[in-house]
Amino acid sequence: MFEAAEVGHRIDRETFEAALPALRVSLLEAQWAVHSKKAFPVIVVIAGVDGAGKGETVNALNEWMDPRHIRTVAFDTPTEEEAQRPRMWRYWQALPARGQIGLLFGSWYTDPIVDRVYRRSGKAALALAVERINRFERMLADDGALILKFWFHLSKDAQRARLEAIDRDPRHTWRVTRADWKQFEHYDRYYAVSEQVLRETSTGYAPWQVVEGADERYRHLTVGTLLHDALRKHLGATRRRRPPAATSTAPLVAPLDAVTVLGRLDLTRALGERKYERELARWQNELARLSQGKGFGKRATVVAFEGMDAAGKGGAIRRLTGALDARQYRVVPIGAPNEEERAYPYLWRFWRHLPRRGRMTIYDRSWYGRVLVERIEGLCSEADWMRAYGEINEFEEELVDGGGLICKFWLQISPEEQLRRFEEREQTGFKHHKITAEDWRNRTRWPLYQQAAADMIERTSTRLAPWTLVEAEDKHWARIKVLKTLVERLREAL
Amino acid sequence: MFEAAEVGHRIDRETFEAALPALRVSLLEAQWAVHSKKAFPVIVVIAGVDGAGKGETVNALNEWMDPRHIRTVAFDTPTEEEAQRPRMWRYWQALPARGQIGLLFGSWYTDPIVDRVYRRSGKAALALAVERINRFERMLADDGALILKFWFHLSKDAQRARLEAIDRDPRHTWRVTRADWKQFEHYDRYYAVSEQVLRETSTGYAPWQVVEGADERYRHLTVGTLLHDALRKHLGATRRRRPPAATSTAPLVAPLDAVTVLGRLDLTRALGERKYERELARWQNELARLSQGKGFGKRATVVAFEGMDAAGKGGAIRRLTGALDARQYRVVPIGAPNEEERAYPYLWRFWRHLPRRGRMTIYDRSWYGRVLVERIEGLCSEADWMRAYGEINEFEEELVDGGGLICKFWLQISPEEQLRRFEEREQTGFKHHKITAEDWRNRTRWPLYQQAAADMIERTSTRLAPWTLVEAEDKHWARIKVLKTLVERLREAL
Repeated sequence: MFEAAEVGHRIDRETFEAALPALRVSLLEAQWAVHSKKAFPVIVVIAGVDGAGKGETVNALNEWMDPRHIRTVAFDTPTEEEAQRPRMWRYWQALPARGQIGLLFGSWYTDPIVDRVYRRSGKAALALAVERINRFERMLADDGALILKFWFHLSKDAQRARLEAIDRDPRHTWRVTRADWKQFEHYDRYYAVSEQVLRETSTGYAPWQVVEGADERYRHLTVGTLLHDALRKHLGATRRRRPPAATSTAPLVAPLDAVTVLGRLDLTRALGERKYERELARWQNELARLSQGKGFGKRATVVAFEGMDAAGKGGAIRRLTGALDARQYRVVPIGAPNEEERAYPYLWRFWRHLPRRGRMTIYDRSWYGRVLVERIEGLCSEADWMRAYGEINEFEEELVDGGGLICKFWLQISPEEQLRRFEEREQTGFKHHKITAEDWRNRTRWPLYQQAAADMIERTSTRLAPWTLVEAEDKHWARIKVLKTLVERLREAL
Repeated sequence: MFEAAEVGHRIDRETFEAALPALRVSLLEAQWAVHSKKAFPVIVVIAGVDGAGKGETVNALNEWMDPRHIRTVAFDTPTEEEAQRPRMWRYWQALPARGQIGLLFGSWYTDPIVDRVYRRSGKAALALAVERINRFERMLADDGALILKFWFHLSKDAQRARLEAIDRDPRHTWRVTRADWKQFEHYDRYYAVSEQVLRETSTGYAPWQVVEGADERYRHLTVGTLLHDALRKHLGATRRRRPPAATSTAPLVAPLDAVTVLGRLDLTRALGERKYERELARWQNELARLSQGKGFGKRATVVAFEGMDAAGKGGAIRRLTGALDARQYRVVPIGAPNEEERAYPYLWRFWRHLPRRGRMTIYDRSWYGRVLVERIEGLCSEADWMRAYGEINEFEEELVDGGGLICKFWLQISPEEQLRRFEEREQTGFKHHKITAEDWRNRTRWPLYQQAAADMIERTSTRLAPWTLVEAEDKHWARIKVLKTLVERLREAL
């Protein structure tokens, strides 16, 4: 893949200066079109060998375009906040919003490549990392992003010469460090590993462009032109966008008899007052004990609650937080996304609130809204929610890999019980605010929601992040089951 | 102040259990009223001696109310990200939005008190810290916040007994550390310093409530009742809110002859093409050199641009960023605040983007919008923008104190030049998007904007953060003046 970038591409000053003004105007116009329509996010990955002029070219792009709508981010050693969260967290935080251009140095490619070069990881680990990168970029592309990846290449001789030249230049010595020279010793291995990674991650939706780094004018003009052409093409494609193509997700088939895993739950399960109080004390104490132990500090715990309106999510959450120290947890209620959140892929706002190790985030409704309310109410396209099953599994896998523990609860009630609770709420002073017209409307779509929930459970109950189905007709039973399950999952994990 | 909290307040179980159900319902209703109307933010500061049950009471509040709209934050040793920014940065990040309740452990009171107890700071430093706290809380209150501050107190004997008891209880030993016992040795001094700080910061808009911590039931019920009463009272006051009272800010008086500091600028200043190119290269090189030096890494640089539409802010910014490495700076364009930003005090979104040390944030329009566009277009009340002068000075003082450097540029052009540029933009392909109907409308209010700018400069040009007035009729002159000023400020500071 790198051979074509070792041929000594050059552009002379005259050609460069003749081409530049028109390119700048076109680039600016294309950037403006993307920005003014908030058309899509532009993700530009900048990678390659040291000394190949990555920084200079990024500076040129910032100079040629409007820097107010560019976000340049350089990833270095993870900060403390970053190290406490899953590996991908900091990349999610750095994603550009729709209408913005993100120039990312040292992206999600750095660790997999460097780990393999220094033999800190094996072949299988690299293959897995590549697989995950492809799925991540696929998700971004499916969400509409334009993804460009530039690899700045130098032949071994050229790199040596470049490092020496920078070393000699007194204005630049700060740029070449001992680490750079150290890394140069591994040139051949670095070459082999990155070539493999590039080959395996150069996809139709996120292709790599290898750019020879030796000549500054060639490098600048090549990157500028490729970026411009890609912006134009993507703007055109977005305008003409057909209804999204059928995805590669297996189709959903509703069972003929309409019996789902939810219908099989035994909703008569209940607990009497006295037994409930005893069990509540027991499991809350146990949860308190676990949350104060050392093991808890090593895991980031994520708890998600889903269920029909009035299924008792709030009550269950309060019994759970009642056992914890308020400094350890955060409850995040999920409603319709706000303005800012809508400018990012839908998982962005959940990444944002992920707990650090030693903390717990409790989501009252969650990322599963995509395959429940958004599916039923038509808030996103079928292709969007169909691919969400896979994206969600991927997301949860990342969490668990990053030291997380996930508990997901579906609270099941019957339509009759929901009606009873709605009416009760309307009559109880401080609860009447809990019932809105929307709740009554959603109620009419009960079977659709039930089918969506059954599909969701089938597709996203994984070994790493299983669903717990909770018989919630009796609040006591439900609350104890939630507490007990959480305690058991924690015990197992810590 | 603490004597009344050493009398041995107790509440027996019966009284407690009789009072609790009604209190919980009332608290929940009050919380709901605040939340559903997004009425105001509720800021609850939790402080006091170790072992006085702060954590337990916060847990009780979370249990009694809806934890989904409560944000509990405990401040510990600053993280790396926090340490790189001004002292108040992390508190701004933790402020609750309108409709939320923030329970803050270890607030802005901790450092001033602890530093004085351990004699790391003198009397004057403490006095200054107190003064700043009062101004900060005043700002929050003026913005509509309800501020409650609870000090959990224990007599010396009671604290010793409490620490020993916790120490003995196997379930709780994790809570008492050697540091707690070490701190106990300083009880008397801690008592004296905190009494002074409490006295001097207990204001009408943010009063302290000292709560005796020995008896859990007394503590819980007292805090719950005080919180409930304050919520109710503030809800009432907000509903009846008169037009905001005259502020304590000195009134603005327009000069009779309408001559302002802006009118005195010599707009004929200009630079020929050749001289401009030479100067540009010179100052950009100098800026590049400074930004690569060691001193730069120790300062957080903030640059703000203001000026009428088409004054050349964008062009000046690009000449400035052209000299920098894209990884060092971020350009933040400021428009109307979004949904999320509107839920916080207006300075919140500027705090949010503050650079860490070694970085530069360039604001294209800034926090001065409050006293310019918001004033002229009536987007906030007169009292709001009148008090903003003081709040802004305070904000900039915090930045400089926290290792920051601030450069503020006002770019001045004549109305005739603006008209010429508007027309030129409308005719130039890739610039036509820069002109909107709003620009034409704002133009009709030229004298009002000029007067507002003059008032702003008079009130906010301080020694720490002076305004630089830039004659911008000639773009060359303006760009060089901006670069040169920034270089000189940096040189002086580094």
